[in-house]
Amino acid sequence: MIAEIISTGTELLMGQITDTNAAYLSARLPALGINLYFRSTAGDNPARIGECLRAALRRSDIVFTIGGLGPTPDDLTKETIAETLGEELVFDPAAAERLKDYFRRIGKPMAENNLKQAMVPARGAALYNPAGTAPGCAFRGRFEGSEKCVIAMPGPPSEFRAMWEESVKPYILAAFPAAASLSSAMLRIYGIGESTVAEMLGERTRSADPSFATYVGKGDVLVRVTSSDPEKLRKGVEEARSIFGGSLYSEDGSDMAQTAVALAREKGVLVTTAESCTGGLVSKLITDVPGSSEIFPGGVVSYSNAVKRSLLGVDAAVLETKGAVSPETAAAMALGAKALMGADIAVSLTGIAGPGGGTPQKPVGLVYMGVADGAGVRTEELHFAGTRDNVRLRSAMAALNAVRLALLERI
Amino acid sequence: MIAEIISTGTELLMGQITDTNAAYLSARLPALGINLYFRSTAGDNPARIGECLRAALRRSDIVFTIGGLGPTPDDLTKETIAETLGEELVFDPAAAERLKDYFRRIGKPMAENNLKQAMVPARGAALYNPAGTAPGCAFRGRFEGSEKCVIAMPGPPSEFRAMWEESVKPYILAAFPAAASLSSAMLRIYGIGESTVAEMLGERTRSADPSFATYVGKGDVLVRVTSSDPEKLRKGVEEARSIFGGSLYSEDGSDMAQTAVALAREKGVLVTTAESCTGGLVSKLITDVPGSSEIFPGGVVSYSNAVKRSLLGVDAAVLETKGAVSPETAAAMALGAKALMGADIAVSLTGIAGPGGGTPQKPVGLVYMGVADGAGVRTEELHFAGTRDNVRLRSAMAALNAVRLALLERI
Repeated sequence: MIAEIISTGTELLMGQITDTNAAYLSARLPALGINLYFRSTAGDNPARIGECLRAALRRSDIVFTIGGLGPTPDDLTKETIAETLGEELVFDPAAAERLKDYFRRIGKPMAENNLKQAMVPARGAALYNPAGTAPGCAFRGRFEGSEKCVIAMPGPPSEFRAMWEESVKPYILAAFPAAASLSSAMLRIYGIGESTVAEMLGERTRSADPSFATYVGKGDVLVRVTSSDPEKLRKGVEEARSIFGGSLYSEDGSDMAQTAVALAREKGVLVTTAESCTGGLVSKLITDVPGSSEIFPGGVVSYSNAVKRSLLGVDAAVLETKGAVSPETAAAMALGAKALMGADIAVSLTGIAGPGGGTPQKPVGLVYMGVADGAGVRTEELHFAGTRDNVRLRSAMAALNAVRLALLERI
Repeated sequence: MIAEIISTGTELLMGQITDTNAAYLSARLPALGINLYFRSTAGDNPARIGECLRAALRRSDIVFTIGGLGPTPDDLTKETIAETLGEELVFDPAAAERLKDYFRRIGKPMAENNLKQAMVPARGAALYNPAGTAPGCAFRGRFEGSEKCVIAMPGPPSEFRAMWEESVKPYILAAFPAAASLSSAMLRIYGIGESTVAEMLGERTRSADPSFATYVGKGDVLVRVTSSDPEKLRKGVEEARSIFGGSLYSEDGSDMAQTAVALAREKGVLVTTAESCTGGLVSKLITDVPGSSEIFPGGVVSYSNAVKRSLLGVDAAVLETKGAVSPETAAAMALGAKALMGADIAVSLTGIAGPGGGTPQKPVGLVYMGVADGAGVRTEELHFAGTRDNVRLRSAMAALNAVRLALLERI
C-alpha cells in the first residue's frame, strides 16, 4: 500500500515550527507494510491544500493530513478533504460532549469556536483524541474512480502521537488487513562519518534484499537493514557487525543515552556527571531515559571556576596555571563529582563551546573529557567543529560513549 | 517572488531525520521578500525528485533543493536538476582542491567517491560550503518557457546553515535585487493556550495588513505580526500588548531562556538551578544561550534523595514525612542551591515526570517549584499532562518564567 503525508499550516511554511509529526509518522508506516514516496506541506489555504491532496490521491492509496483541525478560522483541512472526496461533514454530539468534558477536566472555559471540532465525516469515522480537543477523522471515498482513504490528524505533537497510537494505527490495522510487512533492524554507529560508513558498506547500499540505508543521526550514524525474510535480515545484521566492529554500539535503535543507561542498570552501577561547557546536556540526555533514576543520583553543572573549586574541589592552582579548559581540570572535576555523588563512574566535560571564548591556544571546539571509575581517572582531548549546539552535542555524545565503554570494561 | 523547497532523502521518508533545514530556510525567506506556498519531500529516487521539481518549477520562480549532494551513489539531486533544466555538469578543479584541502585540515583520508561533489553546473555558479565537503550549486535555466533558478544545498544541518548565511543569501541578494520586503515582529506569549490566543485576537486573525498569525511554540505561543508598512506594524504590536498584557514576554522572538538570561545580564544577577524531575534541562536551556556564563555559576541535578540531602541540605525528616515531591522539599532545594552556588536567585523543580512513579496522591505531572531570592523562598504547585518529555519541558518553562518574574521584581 502506498501512502503520502500532507502537513498543513502556514506556521510550517513560515519556519516557526519544525515538522516533527511527519518524521514520527514516516518512521511508523513501514512496520504496517505501507510505503511512503512523497511528503508535502501547504499553508492554511484551502486551494493549496486541495492541490496537494489531489496530487497525493492520484499517486497513493491512503493520505494522511496533519494539522488544520484546530478551532481557529484558518483550520480548514477537514472541509477541504470533504469537498475533494465529495463527502459531507456532520455535527457529532458525542464528540461535542467529549470536547466539553475535556475543558471541564482541565478546569478552563471552552471557547465557542471549539465546537467546530465536533464536525466529522458522515461516512468514515471520527478518531478519538486522547490528548486534546480535536478528534481526528477517517474519510473513505472515491477519487478519479478509485477507492481512497484520507486520515486527518491534529498538528500539536502530543495529540498527534497519542492519536496515532490509540486511534489511527488500530483503525488502519482493522480497515486494511496488512500486506506482509517488512522487518528491519536499526543499527547505530559512533565515531565514523556517514560517507565512510556508506563506503564501508560498499555494494550493499545498492542491494535490494536485504537493503542497507544510512542516515545521519544526532552525533552518530544509523544503518537500517531491511528484508521481508528474517533469515536474510539476520545475515545482513551479522555482516554489519563484522564490518563496523566496536563502532556498532546499538542493534535495536536505542540511542547512546538509552544504551548507556540500560548497561548501567544491568550492572547496577551509579553514574554521575560534572559538566562545564555542556551545561547540563549530558545529565538531561541521561534523565530523558525513563528509569534512569536507578543509576543516576544526580550531577553537577559547574559553569564557573568558583563552583569547580567549591563543589568539585578542583585545585585553585590547577585552575590558575592550567586553566579551566585543561586535562587537569577535567580529571579533578570527574574525581570530585564521583566522590560528591557517591557514584561508581563519573564523566566530566570542560571546553570552549563558542561562539566566543576561543583563543589561538584554546580554540572554540576544544573540549577535555575526564572519566573517573574504580581504575582511577583518565582524560581525553577532543576537537569539534561547527556551532555552539554542535560542539555541545558532540561533547555530550563523547561523554555518554565514554560511560558506555567504562561500563563495558567492568565485569 | 515565489519559492518552493524540495527536501530529498529516503532518510526523511523513513522518519529517521526531522527536516529542520526546511524550517530554517522557510523562516529566512520572508525577509528577502520571497513567499513560500509549498514544500515537498521525495526519497533518493531521480524520477520522484524530478516529479517534485517539475511541479515546483511550474508554480515558482526559485526552487531550493536540500540534500542529495553527498558522495554516496544515491545522492542524485544535482544530476536530476541538470537534466530537468537541460543544463550540464562539469568537473571544477577548484572545488576538487577545496575538497582535498578540507580532508587534509580535519586529518582524515578522502574517499574517492567524494570527488563526485566537485561537479558543478556549466552555467550558473558553485556555492562555497564553509562547513563541509559538498559545494552547493546555483542553476539558471528555462523551464516551460520561463527563466528559473534552482539552488541546490547540502543536507547536513551545520553545512546547510553555514552555506545559507555565507553563500546562498548573498547570491540571491546579488541575483535578484529584492522586491520590497515585509517586516514582521515575533511576539511570544506564556501561560495562554493557542486557541485562546486566537480568540483573543478575534477578527485580527482575518486581517490582511497587518496580519496576525499564531503558532504553537515549545511550551509557549508565538504571534507573528506582519506588514509592509512600519507604522501599521507598530500599531499591530501595540494592540497585541494591550490584549495580552503580562503574558506577552518577548517582542523580538527571543525565547524564555534568552529573555531570562538577557534580563539577568542587564541586572547583574546570578541565577542557579536545583533540578530533580527535569534532570538538567533548565540548566541546559540557560546555557544554550551564549554569554550565559556571566549569570549562571552552575546548577545541581539532585535526582536522588541522598543528593538532595547531602548537597542541597534538604532535611532528612522533610524528605521522609513530606516526600521528595513536596513544596517543603522544593523550598529547601532552592534555598540550598542559592547558598551552595552563591547565587542571587535559585529555582528548583521536583516532580513526577512519568511514565512511572505516579500515585493517586502524587500523580504523574505533579511538580513543585521553589524560587529563592533576597525576599525569601516561595513555592508553586504545578500540574502538567502528557508525556515525560512534555512534563519536563513545561516544568522547565515554568522555572525560566519564574526566574524572569523574580528578575522583573528587582529594582
